[in-house]
Amino acid sequence: MGDTTKQVPFVKGLEGVAVAISSISHIDGKAGRLIYRGFSVEELAQYSNFEEVAFLLWHGKLPTDFELTDFKRKLARERSLSSEISQLLRLLPASSHPMDVLRTAVSAMGVLYRRCDGSGFSLIEDAISILSKIPTVLAAFEAARNNRPPVLPSAELDHAANFLYMLHGKLPEEKVARVFDAILILHAEQEMNASTFAATVTASTLSDIFSAITSAIGTLKGPIHGGASERVIEMLDEIGDPANVETFIEEKMSAGKRIMGFGHRIYKTYDPRAVVLKSMAKELVKSDPGRKRLEVALKLEEVVVERLGEKGIYPNVDFYSGIVYSELGIPKDFFTAIFAMARCAGWAAHIMEYTESNRIFRPRAIYEGSTDLRYLEEKAKARCE
Amino acid sequence: MGDTTKQVPFVKGLEGVAVAISSISHIDGKAGRLIYRGFSVEELAQYSNFEEVAFLLWHGKLPTDFELTDFKRKLARERSLSSEISQLLRLLPASSHPMDVLRTAVSAMGVLYRRCDGSGFSLIEDAISILSKIPTVLAAFEAARNNRPPVLPSAELDHAANFLYMLHGKLPEEKVARVFDAILILHAEQEMNASTFAATVTASTLSDIFSAITSAIGTLKGPIHGGASERVIEMLDEIGDPANVETFIEEKMSAGKRIMGFGHRIYKTYDPRAVVLKSMAKELVKSDPGRKRLEVALKLEEVVVERLGEKGIYPNVDFYSGIVYSELGIPKDFFTAIFAMARCAGWAAHIMEYTESNRIFRPRAIYEGSTDLRYLEEKAKARCE
Repeated sequence: MGDTTKQVPFVKGLEGVAVAISSISHIDGKAGRLIYRGFSVEELAQYSNFEEVAFLLWHGKLPTDFELTDFKRKLARERSLSSEISQLLRLLPASSHPMDVLRTAVSAMGVLYRRCDGSGFSLIEDAISILSKIPTVLAAFEAARNNRPPVLPSAELDHAANFLYMLHGKLPEEKVARVFDAILILHAEQEMNASTFAATVTASTLSDIFSAITSAIGTLKGPIHGGASERVIEMLDEIGDPANVETFIEEKMSAGKRIMGFGHRIYKTYDPRAVVLKSMAKELVKSDPGRKRLEVALKLEEVVVERLGEKGIYPNVDFYSGIVYSELGIPKDFFTAIFAMARCAGWAAHIMEYTESNRIFRPRAIYEGSTDLRYLEEKAKARCE
Repeated sequence: MGDTTKQVPFVKGLEGVAVAISSISHIDGKAGRLIYRGFSVEELAQYSNFEEVAFLLWHGKLPTDFELTDFKRKLARERSLSSEISQLLRLLPASSHPMDVLRTAVSAMGVLYRRCDGSGFSLIEDAISILSKIPTVLAAFEAARNNRPPVLPSAELDHAANFLYMLHGKLPEEKVARVFDAILILHAEQEMNASTFAATVTASTLSDIFSAITSAIGTLKGPIHGGASERVIEMLDEIGDPANVETFIEEKMSAGKRIMGFGHRIYKTYDPRAVVLKSMAKELVKSDPGRKRLEVALKLEEVVVERLGEKGIYPNVDFYSGIVYSELGIPKDFFTAIFAMARCAGWAAHIMEYTESNRIFRPRAIYEGSTDLRYLEEKAKARCE
């Protein structure tokens, strides 16, 4: 076959291959730094808030006070769900995974709320709608599966506080809301990870942002991507006590298995987000089961870093996040959905940036197979088998 | 920043970059050949049928008679929708685009029908469920938006004939069913195109096949991917008469605009599928508006190939497909969904193959931006603006 496919480079999983030029975020995996639009994620988590970070990611600059107030108002105005989405949430079984529910709801939103169609409405308006409604969908599903009426969103509260309010039906303590806001900032953006990449591939066919974010949610759901934090908690509970850590690691390592919550394709030292989450966990955790989990986690970190640190294996963002989420009263099967709620800001930023100077993704596969089978011959053979 | 990102290769849209090793299909873009598992797509369209081609794509070999009968029976058994999906279809407005409906329905199926969870059910069983239910979803939505009760699937009919039966409420002529079956074969698989790639990226996080196919549907929807056939018909109707073709092309070319239905990233000669679709169109079309459209299309092809053929611009798979679909009584906004109905076979094949020796997609972006902004400083500046 006169073709050049075999001459193109092949890198499995596109490790280290650049697929876009971007000014949204940067990871320095050796130094353990994560930068959003020039700012370190630690500074943003300390001083900024989630809405401001979303504005920064989308517009490339910090908002003025007026812009921030305006942006927050727009977000707050978009929080309510139409009756179709509320009915959809009640249709889905209580046993559904929140990520499956979220993927389906955002897809349905594409039918009900899409405005960006070349008639004057911008991509940012659709992005605001999706970002604002994700928390409402999640809280409404939590209410529906517990046979409670949903708590309606409050326009008085910020994004983070409003979610906790809808989820628990009461105003969160200010300190708790602040921690949750910082968590959303830490998870808002992470360069070209798998879910962001999926969103970009979908958007590159000039499909709509609802389709692109639906792809991202389905991708984040995978247990080796966003699904890891759920698994970490299960692992910590399985270990049960710091005294069991050594044996646990021996067993995993001799079986050649990964230890959940450690290692990252790009970070080869401490993930800066893990550092912040660890100190949050230490500050928040007061009693069991959180205290026990934290003890196990600290011991696990100590032993893993001692043994594998020189290979670049350190706690990643998922390692301490579950402990913190649990302390905030977030159900375990919601962990990945919280990740999605935050990362939606980054997904939308990449969709906007990539489609600005778009090129459809159309890679190749290297073909290893026959090229000259004849149907009637092979069919006759298959018949005789 | 001590980082190596700038040293990795960057190819926009991953043109020519291999992302997988595959034995599913091969495109020889210079010779105009498309091979599924060793067989040319023209031979398959002529002699095989869609179910057999799906089996071939998934299992890598033609089925024995027993295997084909068994596979067809399994597919037919999975066609019905549960009441939740039927209710969902009635919730969505009649004005919804069928691709948005399909994306939402397949996502919801992930909640309702998923069985592959490590407990003995295979990925192929979930793939069968999705492949079988897509036609039922589309026909049920067509019924719902026209205030008709849905036509229930018939287990007596093959995949292609059953869809036309559900869509129109009457048995299709054998010749028509045969043409539609061949169309599904032609669209079943096309190596690592954007939608297949999106499905593969999603599956690479070990997310489920419903998530992966939901991503593919949202990606295929884009007007520069699967959405093109709809646009071709609009263009042919806009031109209206073969006499207007020259002027139309002059205007488009001098404005530097693309002519819909021509050119392909890989085929640099006649797309073999376009050749088959063209002869189908010639055979089927009897009266207006089809006849007029075909006349315009033939003239358009003549002039475009004359002018741009040496640059490798030829009719692609979308150019004649719309004319054929219209003759089969398929509504214009269903064209891309028909593509999805067929391509689902290829998507599932790639999901199965890639995850067999999986590696998560985690490319990079080349960062072009600041790395050292300080929040409090910049915030103070933003305040003064």
